[in-house]
Amino acid sequence: MPNKRIQIFDTTLRDGEQVPGCQLNTDEKIEVARALEALGVDVMEVGFPISSPGDFKSVEKIAGIIQNSTVCALSRAVEKDIEVAAEAIRNAARPRIHTGIGTSDSHVFNKLKTTREDVIERGVAAVKFAKRFVEDVEFYAEDAGRTENEFLARILEKVIAAGATVVNIPDTTGYCLPWDYGAKIRYLKENVKGIDDVTISTHCHNDLGLASANSIAGVVHGATQIECTINGIGERAGNASLEEVVMIMRTQKGLDFDTGINTKCLKSVSELVSSKMRMPVQPNKAIVGANAFAHSSGIHQDGVIKSRETYEIIDPLDVGVGESSIVLTARSGRAALKFRAERLGFSVGKEELEDRYQEFLGVADRKKVVEDQDLIQIFSHRARKTA
Amino acid sequence: MPNKRIQIFDTTLRDGEQVPGCQLNTDEKIEVARALEALGVDVMEVGFPISSPGDFKSVEKIAGIIQNSTVCALSRAVEKDIEVAAEAIRNAARPRIHTGIGTSDSHVFNKLKTTREDVIERGVAAVKFAKRFVEDVEFYAEDAGRTENEFLARILEKVIAAGATVVNIPDTTGYCLPWDYGAKIRYLKENVKGIDDVTISTHCHNDLGLASANSIAGVVHGATQIECTINGIGERAGNASLEEVVMIMRTQKGLDFDTGINTKCLKSVSELVSSKMRMPVQPNKAIVGANAFAHSSGIHQDGVIKSRETYEIIDPLDVGVGESSIVLTARSGRAALKFRAERLGFSVGKEELEDRYQEFLGVADRKKVVEDQDLIQIFSHRARKTA
Repeated sequence: MPNKRIQIFDTTLRDGEQVPGCQLNTDEKIEVARALEALGVDVMEVGFPISSPGDFKSVEKIAGIIQNSTVCALSRAVEKDIEVAAEAIRNAARPRIHTGIGTSDSHVFNKLKTTREDVIERGVAAVKFAKRFVEDVEFYAEDAGRTENEFLARILEKVIAAGATVVNIPDTTGYCLPWDYGAKIRYLKENVKGIDDVTISTHCHNDLGLASANSIAGVVHGATQIECTINGIGERAGNASLEEVVMIMRTQKGLDFDTGINTKCLKSVSELVSSKMRMPVQPNKAIVGANAFAHSSGIHQDGVIKSRETYEIIDPLDVGVGESSIVLTARSGRAALKFRAERLGFSVGKEELEDRYQEFLGVADRKKVVEDQDLIQIFSHRARKTA
Repeated sequence: MPNKRIQIFDTTLRDGEQVPGCQLNTDEKIEVARALEALGVDVMEVGFPISSPGDFKSVEKIAGIIQNSTVCALSRAVEKDIEVAAEAIRNAARPRIHTGIGTSDSHVFNKLKTTREDVIERGVAAVKFAKRFVEDVEFYAEDAGRTENEFLARILEKVIAAGATVVNIPDTTGYCLPWDYGAKIRYLKENVKGIDDVTISTHCHNDLGLASANSIAGVVHGATQIECTINGIGERAGNASLEEVVMIMRTQKGLDFDTGINTKCLKSVSELVSSKMRMPVQPNKAIVGANAFAHSSGIHQDGVIKSRETYEIIDPLDVGVGESSIVLTARSGRAALKFRAERLGFSVGKEELEDRYQEFLGVADRKKVVEDQDLIQIFSHRARKTA
């Protein structure tokens, strides 16, 4: 039996980009979006179009470029929000509107100052309105992590009946323990009519350092989409890290999960996001930190020399960490370009290579040395040009 | 019923300090050790004395100063290692020797190139030898995370019979999933003779981003000690973060766990370790990152203004994050000093205050502005001087 395919929903350009200091201009957002497409994310949430004209413009541009990933825009459960989101992604090859409302007591009674019935009505109305524009509508139940399961089941049943294709169960405050979050997903899977026909999504925050564990607990108990960001950036302590959840599923074969992620691009995309957003990655960050594969103590070094598996569960090359012994400059040939592109996980045919080589020479003239990040941009064009 | 008390075993000065670039000189190590004592760690592992004369000297000095925490020294299951460790901590108020050997197939067959029976013999001999010097002997089963449960139970039973007071179950490669690690601890709790008379310890690495989740799964299933480091530093992607595991247990009341940690010192100790060890903490690090309590999006800000609990599960003041509105200089009085010390969780009596105030004036003359980190050093002297 093939492994169960888990969808990777990246929200680096929405939940990540809203962090102070992380704002990108449109060109930078396009560069990140292309890198995410090359990385193989199934869905990319690229903005909250109602929030500003700049955000609208970026979403609109990205929607016109990206071909292989679903492009998603965020909205509140408000008609104007949804209209503007729909307008921004009208040219997307695979558009999705993400809409929703707070469902925990804290949100319903303290923030929205309303009733549960009203929240259900607004959620249903939002989904129905969004369905006028796109087929693919994701509903988020904000603060689902602290929402009573019975009420959560009730509102989800209604929004699914209204046409939602994905239901998102955010642990908005990063409060849940893995087994509690997993039990919540299982409860929904067992108690919501129609849930088997839609995608259940996790969206876990990292306030207690549990976002990756919670996301994995979610998919173990029935979710099939994980929302995450490169380097785990996002509000406060951030979101589940894309690189962590992907590598957990890849390393733990017993889980029988698969993603469409080209893991060899992980390190480069991490560096791209870190440098563009000016958000340093600490050396001891899992998977993409500078020390993630450094063995320092004598005992460990001795062990690794005798047998890599003694202290390493991931081959650094699998996530794009390793020696760049073949340096690419304007003097490099087609073979070197092909070698480096293939090491990043791109398979390059003969004709393809000729086109990309000409593009490579342009970049090499401008930048002297061509890095993995540049290669991802060069080879991610393929989708756009050949689509 | 009172909450179950979980011991916090800090290994910042051993597992953390062995990382390239993190080396400290003896004075710096003493400063960190005092801060850890003020933070309230139950045990601090402060070095691996056989590894170098400098490490030996630091362990020896710290052992002579620290009064309230157990001071622990690491060794392999080798007589010479254990002798040197014992010598280094001979003046400690509460000495512990930590010794052990690899138990996974990878360690037994590939690294040690021996048999399981031989590993058991060496482990038992090491514990017996260490018991000649100290009462408190902790045994680690290296790579326990990937060790077959049945063999792990067998060796632990033998080392407990030999006198081990603590058994440490390291997930050395950071491979385990929380439920698998928890199940391992439960298996040991149910199948090892004598296990109820000793402390079970977790020691989880963060290669997949799961170290905190695994540590908590461990205590939920019967462990009563967590090994961790400030900021999660340590080999490769590091160890479980002290601040994360402590705040998970504090925030999740349903767990019914308690620690002796003075959480108000967390932010200051994090800053001290980060600056001394030159290891940056990323802004999106849980609990101690610069953005951990920053609300950026308009939606979130609105929610927080209406009710803090909407988006916050931890009061920033509880971990020492907040405005330092009372600035301390040589012109500050006793009341200001008392106010700031109490905000860090120290209770200060009248006589105590007079002594500390004189010390404070000395620091203020040298440093102009006295910060939380300085206060921790000033007030952590108490233990030493009054013991």
